[in-house]
Amino acid sequence: MRERVSLALVHHPTLDRRGAVVATAVTTLDLHDFARLGRTYGLGPVYAATPLDGQRSLVARLLGHWVGGRGGELNPGRREALESLRVVGSLPEAARDLEMRWGEPPVLLGTSAREGPDRLGFRQARALLRDGGQPALLVFGTGWGLAPEAVAACRWVLEPVRGAGGYNHLSVRSAASIVVDRLLGPD
Amino acid sequence: MRERVSLALVHHPTLDRRGAVVATAVTTLDLHDFARLGRTYGLGPVYAATPLDGQRSLVARLLGHWVGGRGGELNPGRREALESLRVVGSLPEAARDLEMRWGEPPVLLGTSAREGPDRLGFRQARALLRDGGQPALLVFGTGWGLAPEAVAACRWVLEPVRGAGGYNHLSVRSAASIVVDRLLGPD
Repeated sequence: MRERVSLALVHHPTLDRRGAVVATAVTTLDLHDFARLGRTYGLGPVYAATPLDGQRSLVARLLGHWVGGRGGELNPGRREALESLRVVGSLPEAARDLEMRWGEPPVLLGTSAREGPDRLGFRQARALLRDGGQPALLVFGTGWGLAPEAVAACRWVLEPVRGAGGYNHLSVRSAASIVVDRLLGPD
Repeated sequence: MRERVSLALVHHPTLDRRGAVVATAVTTLDLHDFARLGRTYGLGPVYAATPLDGQRSLVARLLGHWVGGRGGELNPGRREALESLRVVGSLPEAARDLEMRWGEPPVLLGTSAREGPDRLGFRQARALLRDGGQPALLVFGTGWGLAPEAVAACRWVLEPVRGAGGYNHLSVRSAASIVVDRLLGPD
């Protein structure tokens, strides 16, 4: 079941600090962390979505080093993780790639640090992934989170990861790790 | 109870790729992620332990920017997280600082990506933190993990975070996020 769940790290359309819609810069450490997370939990491909050619070239160089090059020779575990990384121009392109791979479109499950109406609880989402049978794409936004247009593309949005109290400013690396463990970790 | 649990990110003694004991370089993103994680879960101070003066100066500069300076003005949430960050020369120094703060020494709970004898299960550790009453310091190693000397300083070592299958190469940022959520997240 897990191999029919994928991750997308979206760099556009995302929000900046002031709420404007922007394309964020790729943080290479995010790609490593997401790929290692996906591989550790036995997930499907990990997508990095950015419309910027220069940013896609950066990711391609990173993959050249870690998958085809010297980095992968020195650190085969890292290569094994990054082999699952795909760079795409947009979230819909990631969904289409998965549809081709799996023969049916994935359900898009968005994430947000903000409260909102109709958020899907972690228990429900866990049951959905386990029993639903339909492939799923978990969508994470960089910067200050997914822009409304990206949220609107999602069938559901997960409830925020709440720790204790009202402060809730996890990095996308931390949030994705916790979300994946809550949805797909051991019982 | 949560405020009597702290995090330590150890940069020495840690292992390198070949198993040699080294001092790793500080990755500033780790400090942000750990501080944000600690703040979100309402934990006590977050310690970055390194014996290298130059590395401690780096952390002090980072704190100057985010706590006392321009970064904190622009991003008060980040400042609020990084206010909990303390830089120390060693793991024992972190434990002593906590003892002074709490009036009793913390239990050191190590973490490792490797299996080993007498690992403490997540359920047991969760019960321990909730019911034990004793303050605790969760210890994470950078590089290829805590060196035996640092592991030996811990009262217990937690079982590894297992995802699916045998691959287990999470970043320390991901592993710490999952460990904190499993031990201190909502029921």
